[in-house]
Amino acid sequence: MKLSRLGEFGLIEEIRRTTSTSRGVRIGIGDDCAWVNHPAGSSLITADLLIEGVHFDLKWTSLDALGHKSLAVNLSDIAAMGGVPAYALLSLGIPGNFNSKQIAAFYRGFNRLARRSGVVLIGGDTNIAKSLIVSVCLIGHPPVWPVRRRGAKVGDDIYVTGTLGDSALGLALLRKQLPGAKGNAAAQLLARHHRPTPRLIAGTFLARHNLATAMIDVSDGLLQDLGHICRASGTGATIEHERLPLSRAFRESSGKARTDLALNGGEDYELLFCARPRHRKRIEKLSAPADVRISRIGHCVSAAQGITVLDSAGKPLSLHFKGHDHFRK
Amino acid sequence: MKLSRLGEFGLIEEIRRTTSTSRGVRIGIGDDCAWVNHPAGSSLITADLLIEGVHFDLKWTSLDALGHKSLAVNLSDIAAMGGVPAYALLSLGIPGNFNSKQIAAFYRGFNRLARRSGVVLIGGDTNIAKSLIVSVCLIGHPPVWPVRRRGAKVGDDIYVTGTLGDSALGLALLRKQLPGAKGNAAAQLLARHHRPTPRLIAGTFLARHNLATAMIDVSDGLLQDLGHICRASGTGATIEHERLPLSRAFRESSGKARTDLALNGGEDYELLFCARPRHRKRIEKLSAPADVRISRIGHCVSAAQGITVLDSAGKPLSLHFKGHDHFRK
Repeated sequence: MKLSRLGEFGLIEEIRRTTSTSRGVRIGIGDDCAWVNHPAGSSLITADLLIEGVHFDLKWTSLDALGHKSLAVNLSDIAAMGGVPAYALLSLGIPGNFNSKQIAAFYRGFNRLARRSGVVLIGGDTNIAKSLIVSVCLIGHPPVWPVRRRGAKVGDDIYVTGTLGDSALGLALLRKQLPGAKGNAAAQLLARHHRPTPRLIAGTFLARHNLATAMIDVSDGLLQDLGHICRASGTGATIEHERLPLSRAFRESSGKARTDLALNGGEDYELLFCARPRHRKRIEKLSAPADVRISRIGHCVSAAQGITVLDSAGKPLSLHFKGHDHFRK
Repeated sequence: MKLSRLGEFGLIEEIRRTTSTSRGVRIGIGDDCAWVNHPAGSSLITADLLIEGVHFDLKWTSLDALGHKSLAVNLSDIAAMGGVPAYALLSLGIPGNFNSKQIAAFYRGFNRLARRSGVVLIGGDTNIAKSLIVSVCLIGHPPVWPVRRRGAKVGDDIYVTGTLGDSALGLALLRKQLPGAKGNAAAQLLARHHRPTPRLIAGTFLARHNLATAMIDVSDGLLQDLGHICRASGTGATIEHERLPLSRAFRESSGKARTDLALNGGEDYELLFCARPRHRKRIEKLSAPADVRISRIGHCVSAAQGITVLDSAGKPLSLHFKGHDHFRK
């Protein structure tokens, strides 16, 4: 059905009908505000805005995948503080030529990940727009001590979950800038780009057991996000290039861009965290229950030493540092 | 300074520097999530998305006014449940040719109203975009019993705060569809369009004293929002046209559009609520402390009778009902 026939309130009713409720939700979709419980007396809140033509391109992103990703990037922020996600508000700007099937596909992807993550959609806003706009606000329950970006100390180990660069390589593939990748490897890289997995179990575990001294999710590239931890903590960092976790698909397909994409490629949505060396064994053991590889990639040094990446011979790489900044050209 | 020189993280630092903090905020701007206290153990949450070319036109809206309005429309939702606003997340999509002065003007308008309303900005997101996009998520503390849209009973009085239609008339003026208005009257209508006043004191009072049986803020036009109350409550409504509160500026300038704009003009951001007839005196007395006119405009009837507007002779007006729907043409 065309949206112009369904109407705004028909659409909201449709969304309400397909959305599950839950115990903590006292008032959900369909009033002026949502009303929710906070067992802890406090909450974590994060928001992300995804804009067509800036963050995604509907030529190569399905609406189901976009629904997944728009929730996943917010879940990743909650994971990076060690929190448990609970409530989401979703505001959409929808082009007038969309039909209700397309909207349903978006909500299918969003709601599937929401169910798997224990998240309930409690409200939002729907509007007409020239291009698709997705704005998500996510509320979560904090651990006793949320893990911040500040807190790393000189001598701390530096870890990252999962593998790096896959998403950026997947994007290069979509842009036809990557002739090498095909078959299974290509499919894996695309999946990593379209459907990132927020590392909620790892994040909760690290916070609950006070293992991470600082943590962030890698959304703008490893070096940029490591820079945020270093600035907030007042440290520098030394990364061993050989220890960077790379997937087989990435190794097979990345060619010359390998180093750059592993260090600067965005949208990994892995956790980057620091921990005391005495906790190495406990952190290694986390890999199995969290169902994700956890790699020690370097350690914190003094702020004066800055951020360095060492090659296999222990020599500093001359870095082509860029990361992602929305406003710089 | 051009945004391309300031950069994303320069901008975030600038926003953080000019934002006040407050006791309930444990972690504010500058980490993966914000972390805030909820004294009540529960909270009210609302979100609104404003899109250039759909909700506002920068040809006739100053960025300061837009900052005010983007917070005001969310405050109005919290007021309509009887809550006390507390925390805001602001996500912006900013055109690349904006400079930091323009962004500062937006935040000035936003932060001025935030201070006056006891709201602290705790986070959000900044992005580049083709046109300006403003997404606000607002969190508030609920009263013991938030006032819902459902709850009105047959025989309840119907009230509205302030005056109706001014904002719609202000917009007509901006679009040069209103040759009549000038001078002081025009300025008042424009102010009502650009800088709506959320009725927070009235909302809190009505909820705290259990006076309102149902409440909503008038954003899409009186009849449309009254329709939401009636549908949710299972009632109809009879409105006396003569009782509709109209400002002097509106009376002087509205001409033939008078009835239509008072009933269907959007963006009034007044509170529309129902109450038992035995509470009339207490509600009349609320006007002074809340610093706003409160008018009884009709009463609830059975659902089968629908919504009717009566003229001064008691005859039903034939209504040109439209209200606002983002998707219908």
